[in-house]
Amino acid sequence: MSDRRSFPKPQSGMVVPRFGGIATFMRLPAFTDPADLDIGLVGVPWDGGTTNRPGARHGPRQMRDMSTLMRRVHHVSGIEPYTLARIGDLGDTSVNPASVDDSLTRIETFYAKLHKAGVVPLSAGGDHLVTLPILRAIARRRPLGMVHFDAHSDTWDTYFGGYKYTHGTPFRRAIEEGLLDPKRIVQIGIRGSLYGNADMAWAYDQGIRVITIEEYFDLGVDKVIEEARRVVGDGATYVSFDVDGLDPVFAPGTGTPEIGGYSTHEAQRMIRGLRGLDLVGADVVEVSPPFDPSGNTALVGVTMMWELMCLLAECVAKRRARPAAKRQRFARRNKRNV
Amino acid sequence: MSDRRSFPKPQSGMVVPRFGGIATFMRLPAFTDPADLDIGLVGVPWDGGTTNRPGARHGPRQMRDMSTLMRRVHHVSGIEPYTLARIGDLGDTSVNPASVDDSLTRIETFYAKLHKAGVVPLSAGGDHLVTLPILRAIARRRPLGMVHFDAHSDTWDTYFGGYKYTHGTPFRRAIEEGLLDPKRIVQIGIRGSLYGNADMAWAYDQGIRVITIEEYFDLGVDKVIEEARRVVGDGATYVSFDVDGLDPVFAPGTGTPEIGGYSTHEAQRMIRGLRGLDLVGADVVEVSPPFDPSGNTALVGVTMMWELMCLLAECVAKRRARPAAKRQRFARRNKRNV
Amino acid sequence: MSDRRSFPKPQSGMVVPRFGGIATFMRLPAFTDPADLDIGLVGVPWDGGTTNRPGARHGPRQMRDMSTLMRRVHHVSGIEPYTLARIGDLGDTSVNPASVDDSLTRIETFYAKLHKAGVVPLSAGGDHLVTLPILRAIARRRPLGMVHFDAHSDTWDTYFGGYKYTHGTPFRRAIEEGLLDPKRIVQIGIRGSLYGNADMAWAYDQGIRVITIEEYFDLGVDKVIEEARRVVGDGATYVSFDVDGLDPVFAPGTGTPEIGGYSTHEAQRMIRGLRGLDLVGADVVEVSPPFDPSGNTALVGVTMMWELMCLLAECVAKRRARPAAKRQRFARRNKRNV
Amino acid sequence: MSDRRSFPKPQSGMVVPRFGGIATFMRLPAFTDPADLDIGLVGVPWDGGTTNRPGARHGPRQMRDMSTLMRRVHHVSGIEPYTLARIGDLGDTSVNPASVDDSLTRIETFYAKLHKAGVVPLSAGGDHLVTLPILRAIARRRPLGMVHFDAHSDTWDTYFGGYKYTHGTPFRRAIEEGLLDPKRIVQIGIRGSLYGNADMAWAYDQGIRVITIEEYFDLGVDKVIEEARRVVGDGATYVSFDVDGLDPVFAPGTGTPEIGGYSTHEAQRMIRGLRGLDLVGADVVEVSPPFDPSGNTALVGVTMMWELMCLLAECVAKRRARPAAKRQRFARRNKRNV
Amino acid sequence: MSDRRSFPKPQSGMVVPRFGGIATFMRLPAFTDPADLDIGLVGVPWDGGTTNRPGARHGPRQMRDMSTLMRRVHHVSGIEPYTLARIGDLGDTSVNPASVDDSLTRIETFYAKLHKAGVVPLSAGGDHLVTLPILRAIARRRPLGMVHFDAHSDTWDTYFGGYKYTHGTPFRRAIEEGLLDPKRIVQIGIRGSLYGNADMAWAYDQGIRVITIEEYFDLGVDKVIEEARRVVGDGATYVSFDVDGLDPVFAPGTGTPEIGGYSTHEAQRMIRGLRGLDLVGADVVEVSPPFDPSGNTALVGVTMMWELMCLLAECVAKRRARPAAKRQRFARRNKRNV
Amino acid sequence: MSDRRSFPKPQSGMVVPRFGGIATFMRLPAFTDPADLDIGLVGVPWDGGTTNRPGARHGPRQMRDMSTLMRRVHHVSGIEPYTLARIGDLGDTSVNPASVDDSLTRIETFYAKLHKAGVVPLSAGGDHLVTLPILRAIARRRPLGMVHFDAHSDTWDTYFGGYKYTHGTPFRRAIEEGLLDPKRIVQIGIRGSLYGNADMAWAYDQGIRVITIEEYFDLGVDKVIEEARRVVGDGATYVSFDVDGLDPVFAPGTGTPEIGGYSTHEAQRMIRGLRGLDLVGADVVEVSPPFDPSGNTALVGVTMMWELMCLLAECVAKRRARPAAKRQRFARRNKRNV
Repeated sequence: MSDRRSFPKPQSGMVVPRFGGIATFMRLPAFTDPADLDIGLVGVPWDGGTTNRPGARHGPRQMRDMSTLMRRVHHVSGIEPYTLARIGDLGDTSVNPASVDDSLTRIETFYAKLHKAGVVPLSAGGDHLVTLPILRAIARRRPLGMVHFDAHSDTWDTYFGGYKYTHGTPFRRAIEEGLLDPKRIVQIGIRGSLYGNADMAWAYDQGIRVITIEEYFDLGVDKVIEEARRVVGDGATYVSFDVDGLDPVFAPGTGTPEIGGYSTHEAQRMIRGLRGLDLVGADVVEVSPPFDPSGNTALVGVTMMWELMCLLAECVAKRRARPAAKRQRFARRNKRNV
Repeated sequence: MSDRRSFPKPQSGMVVPRFGGIATFMRLPAFTDPADLDIGLVGVPWDGGTTNRPGARHGPRQMRDMSTLMRRVHHVSGIEPYTLARIGDLGDTSVNPASVDDSLTRIETFYAKLHKAGVVPLSAGGDHLVTLPILRAIARRRPLGMVHFDAHSDTWDTYFGGYKYTHGTPFRRAIEEGLLDPKRIVQIGIRGSLYGNADMAWAYDQGIRVITIEEYFDLGVDKVIEEARRVVGDGATYVSFDVDGLDPVFAPGTGTPEIGGYSTHEAQRMIRGLRGLDLVGADVVEVSPPFDPSGNTALVGVTMMWELMCLLAECVAKRRARPAAKRQRFARRNKRNV
Repeated sequence: MSDRRSFPKPQSGMVVPRFGGIATFMRLPAFTDPADLDIGLVGVPWDGGTTNRPGARHGPRQMRDMSTLMRRVHHVSGIEPYTLARIGDLGDTSVNPASVDDSLTRIETFYAKLHKAGVVPLSAGGDHLVTLPILRAIARRRPLGMVHFDAHSDTWDTYFGGYKYTHGTPFRRAIEEGLLDPKRIVQIGIRGSLYGNADMAWAYDQGIRVITIEEYFDLGVDKVIEEARRVVGDGATYVSFDVDGLDPVFAPGTGTPEIGGYSTHEAQRMIRGLRGLDLVGADVVEVSPPFDPSGNTALVGVTMMWELMCLLAECVAKRRARPAAKRQRFARRNKRNV
Repeated sequence: MSDRRSFPKPQSGMVVPRFGGIATFMRLPAFTDPADLDIGLVGVPWDGGTTNRPGARHGPRQMRDMSTLMRRVHHVSGIEPYTLARIGDLGDTSVNPASVDDSLTRIETFYAKLHKAGVVPLSAGGDHLVTLPILRAIARRRPLGMVHFDAHSDTWDTYFGGYKYTHGTPFRRAIEEGLLDPKRIVQIGIRGSLYGNADMAWAYDQGIRVITIEEYFDLGVDKVIEEARRVVGDGATYVSFDVDGLDPVFAPGTGTPEIGGYSTHEAQRMIRGLRGLDLVGADVVEVSPPFDPSGNTALVGVTMMWELMCLLAECVAKRRARPAAKRQRFARRNKRNV
Repeated sequence: MSDRRSFPKPQSGMVVPRFGGIATFMRLPAFTDPADLDIGLVGVPWDGGTTNRPGARHGPRQMRDMSTLMRRVHHVSGIEPYTLARIGDLGDTSVNPASVDDSLTRIETFYAKLHKAGVVPLSAGGDHLVTLPILRAIARRRPLGMVHFDAHSDTWDTYFGGYKYTHGTPFRRAIEEGLLDPKRIVQIGIRGSLYGNADMAWAYDQGIRVITIEEYFDLGVDKVIEEARRVVGDGATYVSFDVDGLDPVFAPGTGTPEIGGYSTHEAQRMIRGLRGLDLVGADVVEVSPPFDPSGNTALVGVTMMWELMCLLAECVAKRRARPAAKRQRFARRNKRNV
Repeated sequence: MSDRRSFPKPQSGMVVPRFGGIATFMRLPAFTDPADLDIGLVGVPWDGGTTNRPGARHGPRQMRDMSTLMRRVHHVSGIEPYTLARIGDLGDTSVNPASVDDSLTRIETFYAKLHKAGVVPLSAGGDHLVTLPILRAIARRRPLGMVHFDAHSDTWDTYFGGYKYTHGTPFRRAIEEGLLDPKRIVQIGIRGSLYGNADMAWAYDQGIRVITIEEYFDLGVDKVIEEARRVVGDGATYVSFDVDGLDPVFAPGTGTPEIGGYSTHEAQRMIRGLRGLDLVGADVVEVSPPFDPSGNTALVGVTMMWELMCLLAECVAKRRARPAAKRQRFARRNKRNV
C-alpha cells in the first residue's frame, strides 16, 4: 500500500463513499516502514492502566472508523496537511493485555523505531498511561514542554498500595524520569472531587501551571491560549488530549467522566491557538467505545486528531525548510542512537 | 377527523396523556384536503440523497411521536398558533426509495397541490435534498430568500462522478433554477473540514452570506440575528433548519455530524429573532432515528418546528388581516377548486 | 378517515413505503365510531398496575409503528383478514396515570361502548391489569374461557399490604367477579421463582390448567395445542398474550422478564393451533418500549396481533354466516343494555 | 455496618476500586437508625406522580451505582464533608407502586422519623412529587424558603380531571399547606411551551420569583445567584434540584425533557453560590434510568448531590457550633412531637 | 501488504490482540490485485435497493471489525482454509449511493475483474440486490444453482409502480437473465405475511424449491440439508445467506426482520451440510449496523462467512488437484494478464 | 446488618418493591464475618485476565441489581434455600486492576478465609481467571471434580509470548497445580474456531470429558446430564458457569461470544440435573455489563446463581444432617490450616 516518493493522499469520499473501504486513519494508506513518512498515525489499543471503567483498548479501531468523515483542508486555517507532509497509518503498537510492564516496553519499542526514523507521532489511545512510553521514546534527550487537556492532573503517585503505573500516574513518572519539564507543562480543565487535600500539592510544587475548569471559564478561551503559549514557550512541546477534559456530553465514551468541562468548539479553538509552537508529537486518549457505541466520542477524538495533524504538518514543513537544522537534528539523533 | 369550520386544536395532555393516541404532528387532527388548512404539517420520509449515513427516511414518524410533548402557547412570545391559523397534519408525501428522480417528482407534486391551495408548508425531512422539490413547488413564481441553519453549505455541484442530486447539492440546484435569490440567502453555522479549498468558492461567488461557526461565536446570537434579517429583508423568505447545524450533542441522530456547533437554546433564540419576517414556508431536516433511538434528536427537531410554527401562524394571521390580498387569494383558490 | 360501506384496507407498502405515513395499527384507517367495524384494534396506554419496571404505557404507540411491517395475507393459513371483516384502528382508551381506580373505569367504559356495538376487540397493552376492565366490559353476561400465554399466573391476591389491583392480580379478580370460568382457563409457560410454596395453590384449587414451561417442553407444541383446545372447548373464549411468556431474548422490552421461555415460532404455532375456536377478543400486553428502544419486542407483539387478527376475522365471518344466531346475540345484548 | 461514635467514611477507591462492592450512596456505610447520623442520604424509588414517561422509580439505585465515582474533598471550596458531619446511607423509603396516597403517607412517615432524630435529609428521587411528603415531614413547624432548579414550575392545580397529586403539582400543594413561603421561593430555568396563557399566573400571583431560562441567560450565573440569595434570605431553606432544569443533553434520562437549559457547570456554580445559606434539606429528582441506560444522567444527579452535601455538611457543623440554639431547636422539636 | 508467493495468513491474536490493528476481513492482508488470490473477500457497501430500513451500506466495515474474532481452524471439520487457498481482503467495491443503475454497473465491473482472474468471491453486503451484479459477473457463461437462506423469496417483480431493482427482486431478475437455473434453486426459511396470495406463485412456477420455515421445522435440519443437496446437485452452485433468514434475535441488525426463523447453530449445520458441493461463490447480506450497534449481528454474519470460506477453500484445493483443468485456467489467466 | 442466630431472609418485594433498596445479592443482608453463614455470595470484580473485550469487572454490581428479581422458592424442585442454609452477601473481594499477580493473591486470601470458616462460596465474576484463585483456596487438600459450562475449554497454555495467567488458561493451571482432577472434569458447549489443530489436544490428553456443542445437540439435554453425573461421580465437585457457553442471544454482555450455543432453559435443566451431587462451590463468570447495558445478561447470570444456590443449600442441609462426617470435615480442615 505504500508510496515512498509522493505524498500519500486519503481516499476521496467522492469516489468511495465514506462508509466504504477498509478503515484506516483519515482514509490514508497503511504503512509498515516509518521511513516512508513524516507524521505517523498510530493506535495504542491498551487500557491496562485503567483504574475504573475499561474499554479504551477498543479506541483506535472505532476512531479509524469515524475518521473516514474527515476531509483534506482545514476550514479555518486553510491548512492542507497532505501537501505539507507525508502522513500515513502505521497501524497499532503491539500490546499485552496481561501485563502492564510488558506493554510499556512494547509501546516504547514501537515509538523508538519511529523516533529513530524521524517520524512525528500522532497517536490514538488507549488510556492515558500510554503517553508515558511514548514520551520515553521521544523525550530521552531533553525534557519536553506539554499542553495537557484533561479533567485530571494524572500526577498521583501510586494506587492500590504502591502500584506506580496507572492512567492516574503517567505525568508524575514522566517528570521523575526527566521526560517533561514541569515548568513548561500547562494543564487545562482540571476538576472533580479529590481523594485528599494534598492531591494536587505535588503538581503545584513542581511548578506545573494548572488551569482548573473554574479558572478556565473565568479567563475565557483567548486568555487560556495566551497563558498556554506563555508556559510552553519556544521549546519542543508535546500535546496530550484526554477526551475527559471535555464535558462528558461531548465525550460520554470515556473511563472517568467528570461533569462540567469545556465544549468541543472551545477545544478546537484552543488547539488552533497552539499554531506556530514547536510541536514534536501529540496524542488523543481515553476514547472508550463500549461506553459510547454510537461512535460520537470517537468522532470527537478523531476531529481533535485532525486539528492536531494540521499543526504538526505545518511544523514538519517548517523544519524541512531549515535544512541545516534538520541535518543537525539527524546528526544528534544518530549519535544518540549509537 | 377533519373539521372545516373551526380552527383545529391539539388533543389535550390533560385528557389523553402524551404517550397515548395515534401520533400526529403536535397531536393535531389528520387532514387529506389542503383546503382545510392555512398551515400544513407534512412529512417527507426520504433519504435517497444521503451520501453517508442513511436513516432520515424514518424521521417524520419519530418526530410525530416526540411532537406529542408540545403544548399550545409559546412561553416567551405568548403566541397561540392554533388561534391564529388552521393547522393540521397532512401526512407524508409519496416517495420512491428506489429512485431519486421519481421521488423528486412525487414530492414536488405533493407540495404543488398544497401551494395551489394556499397552504403554507412546514415540513419534517428526510434528508436535505427534499428542500429542492419543495422549493420547486412554492418558488416557481419568484426566487425566495432563505435563512439556512446548517453545518454545511450544501452548494456542492456533483458527487460520485457527475451525479447532481444529493443532500450536498440542493441549494446549488435551487439557485441555478432561480428558486432562491443567492443575495438573500444567509447560512449560519457552516464548518467542518473541506474536500478542497475551492469548496466554498461558488457560494461566495453567488453572494450568499455565509456565517461560519467561528464568525457565529465571535458575533454572538444578537448580531447574527441582525445580520440574518438584513440579508433576507422584507421579501418572501423560507427557513430551512438542518439539525446538523446544532452541535452533535444536541442532535446525534443525523447523517453527517460535525462537532462544534451551536446549542438548541441559541437556535431557539435565532428562530425567535426572525419574528416579523415574511415567511412562506419552513422545514426541519436530517433527523435520522437509527442514529438516535432515544428520540432526543427528534424532540429537538419538533421543538424547532414548534418555534417555526408560531412564526408562520403570525404570518398567516397578518396576511388574513389584509383583506384585499386575502380575497384575491381565496378567489384564486375557489376558482381552482371548482 | 372512515368508510362505512366497504371493508377497510391497509395502505400498501408498494405505494407509501412502510416507514412513511401516520402510524396506525396495521396501516389501517383510523375510526372513532365502533359501528363502522367488526374488529376494533385498540391501544391501552397504561401501566399503573406495574409492580416493578414501568413503561408498558408506551407500548401501543411503538406497536403501531412496528405494525407497518405487516402485510395482507397469512402465509400459512392463507387467511386474508381484510376481506373477512371490517377492521380498523379505534385509537387508545382514555387513562389516568395518577389513579388506578379511575383508569379501570375509563378503560371499561371504552370497551363497553365497543361491545355494545358488536365489535370484537383486539387490544395492545399496557400492563396485564388492563385485561381486567376489558373482561368486565365483554364478559358480564357469562364467564369466558381463556387461553393465557404468560410466564406468570397473575392470580396473586394482593400486593404491598392489601392492594388488590396490580398486573399480578387481574385473573384472580376476574374469576372472583365471574368473568372467567377457571375450569376453562389454560395458562401456558408459567415459570420463575416464587414468593412462597402456596403461590400457585389458589390457581390450582380453582381448576385452572397450568402448563408450566417445563411441562410445555416435555409435551411439545402439538400436545400443548391439543390440551389448550380441550380445556377451553367450544365456548366463547378470550386469548391473552403476555409477551413475557416468550423467552426474554424474543421480548426483552417487558417489565418482568423470566428467562427460559418459548420462542416466537412456537408461539405462532400455538396461536395458529387455536383456529376454529369461538374467539371473542384478544390482547397482547406488557410490551415496554423503554426497555427495548430497538422496537424488536414491539415487532414481536404486533406479529402476534396479526396472528390473532386472522383467527378473529375468521370467527367474525363465520358468525356473519349464521344470521339467526347473530340476531339472537343482538337481541340478548340489547336486553342486557336496557 | 454502623459506627455511632466516629464520623463514617466512604470506602477508598485505592483499596476497593470504584466498580467493586455493594453500591451505597457515596460508598458510605448503610445505616438503619437515623440517630447515628447528622445527614441522611435517602432514596425515594417512586414515580407514581409521573404524567408522561415513567422510570424515576429506578433512579436511586442507578444513582448509588454512579455515586461510587465521588471522592472526599471538594476541589473548589475545599470542603471535606465527612469531617464536618456524620453522613450515611439510610436506604430507600417504603413506597407503594399501586397507590399515590399510600405512597405519600409512607414517604412522609419515613422522613418524619428522620426529622425527629434531627437528621438533615439529602434525597434522591423519584419523581418531583416526592418532595411534597418530604416537606410535610420537615416543614410542619414553619414554611421554608426554596431554591428550585427546574424547567417546570410544578405549580399546576390538577390533572386528568381533578387529580391533585402528580409531579406537576407538588409546590402548589406545598404552598397551600403552608410548607413553603412562596415569597421565599426562587425557580430557575423555567421554560417550555404551555397548556395555556394562565399556566404561570398562579405562581406569579403567589409572589414566586420565576427566573425563566431566557432571563437566566440574560442575567448570567452570578446575577442569578445573587437574586436567589436575595429571595430566600437568612431563613431556613430547602433546595430542590430537578435534573430537567439542565439541558437534556446533560440529563437525557428524565421524564419530561425540555430543550434549551443550563449546563452542569453552570448548575454547579449556582449550587456553590448558595454556600452559607441556612439549608435544612435538599433533593435531586427525576433521574429516570430507563431513558439513559448509560448512567450519565445519574452521574450528573449524584454530582449535584455531592455539591449539595458539601453545603449541608457546613450547615450542620455551623449549627453544632451553636450549642444553645441547638438545644432550643431540640426543645422545640420535642414539644412538637408530643 | 501483499505476498504473491506464500499463502496469506491472518495476524495472530496471540501477538496483536483481537481488538488491535487495522480491521480487515479475518485479519488477512489487504490486496488490490486479484491475481494474488484464490478466494477474494469483498465488501459491497450499498443499500440502494432497500425498501424499508436502510443501513446495510455500513455492513462490510462492522463485519470486518467483528471478523477479528475468527481463528484459523474449523473446530468441527478440521478444515484449515489458509493452508488450502490463497485468501485475502480485496477491499470494497465502488458504489454510488445516488444511483441504483450506476451502482449495479460498478459492482458488476469489480466482480468481472475478479472472475477473469479466477478468483472465487466471498462477499459481505450490502442489501440483497448486490447479489444480482455479482451473478452477472460470474454466471454469464452458464446458469448457476443456488442455496438461498432467507425469510423472503426476493422474487417479486416490481415495486413502487414499476421499479425493477430493489432488494425484493434480485432473483427474479437473475432467473430472467439466465444467471440462475430456477430448478436448481432451494430457498430455506421463507415466511412472513404476504402482499397477496399470488406473491409466491412466480417462484413456484419457475420450479424453485421453497422450504418455508414451517416445512423447515417439520423436516428438521438433516432432511433439509439432504433436500438442498438434491436440488442443486453436482453443478456449479452459489450460496447466498441473508441474515434475515435467521430469527431476528440472532440478527436484529437487519432491514426486514421476520420473527420465527432458525438459529445460528442450525444455520451453521446447514452450511456445513453443503460440504463437497461445487461452490463457486457465496455472500452474506443484509447486516445493517445502525439497527444493531452492538455488533452481534455482524459477528453472526462473519461467522457464516467463516463457515462458507472453509467450504470454498476445499473447493479451491480440489480444483487445484485437477492439474489439467488448472493448467487451462492458469493459461487463460496468463493470456488475460498479458 | 447481620443476624447470627436465625437464617437470613431476603427483603420481600411485597414490602419494598424490587427496584427499591440497596442492591445486595438476592436482596439478602450484607455480612462481613463469614462465620455467620453457610453459603457466602461473593463478587469478584476483576477482568485482568481478559484477552479481548474487558468489562467483567462491572459484573458483580449489575448482577446484584438484577438479582432483586429473584424470589424465595424454586418453582420446579420446590427447594426453599433460605430455610436450608444461612446465606448472605459477603461483598466483593479486594482486587488490583493494575496487577494480575497481586489480584490473584488478594482473591485467594479472601476465599481462604471463607473456606476456613466452612463457608461454601457462590461467586459472581469477573472473568474466568477468577476461578483459579478460588480453587486455590478451596481445593488445596484434594483435587475437585468440575462441571464446566463454557464455549471455551480455557486450557490454553500461554498468551502473548509466555504469559500464563489469562481467562484462557485457568483450568490448565488448576490441573497442573492439582486443584482439579482432569478425569472428573466435564466441559459442556465447547465450540468456535481454533488457533490450531492442537488446541484441544492437551485437554483430551488429560482425560477431560469434552462435550462439544455439536455433541451436545446430538445427545440432548438428558443424556448430557447423565454423562456429566457419570464423569464427576460422588466426589466433591465444583460448578463453573461461564455465560458464554450460552448462545450469545441469551448473554450478549460477555467478552468472547461464540455463536451457536445452548439456551437458558437448557442450561437451567442441566443445572437442575446436578441435584444430589456433592457440590462444594460454584461460580457464574464473564458477565460484562458494558456490552449489555440492558442488564439482561446479568439477569441470566443471577438466575443461574439462584439455580446453583438451591443445589448448594441442599448440600449444606445434607451435610448438617451428618454430624459425624461434619465433625471429621472440621477436624481435617483445622489440621490443614495449622
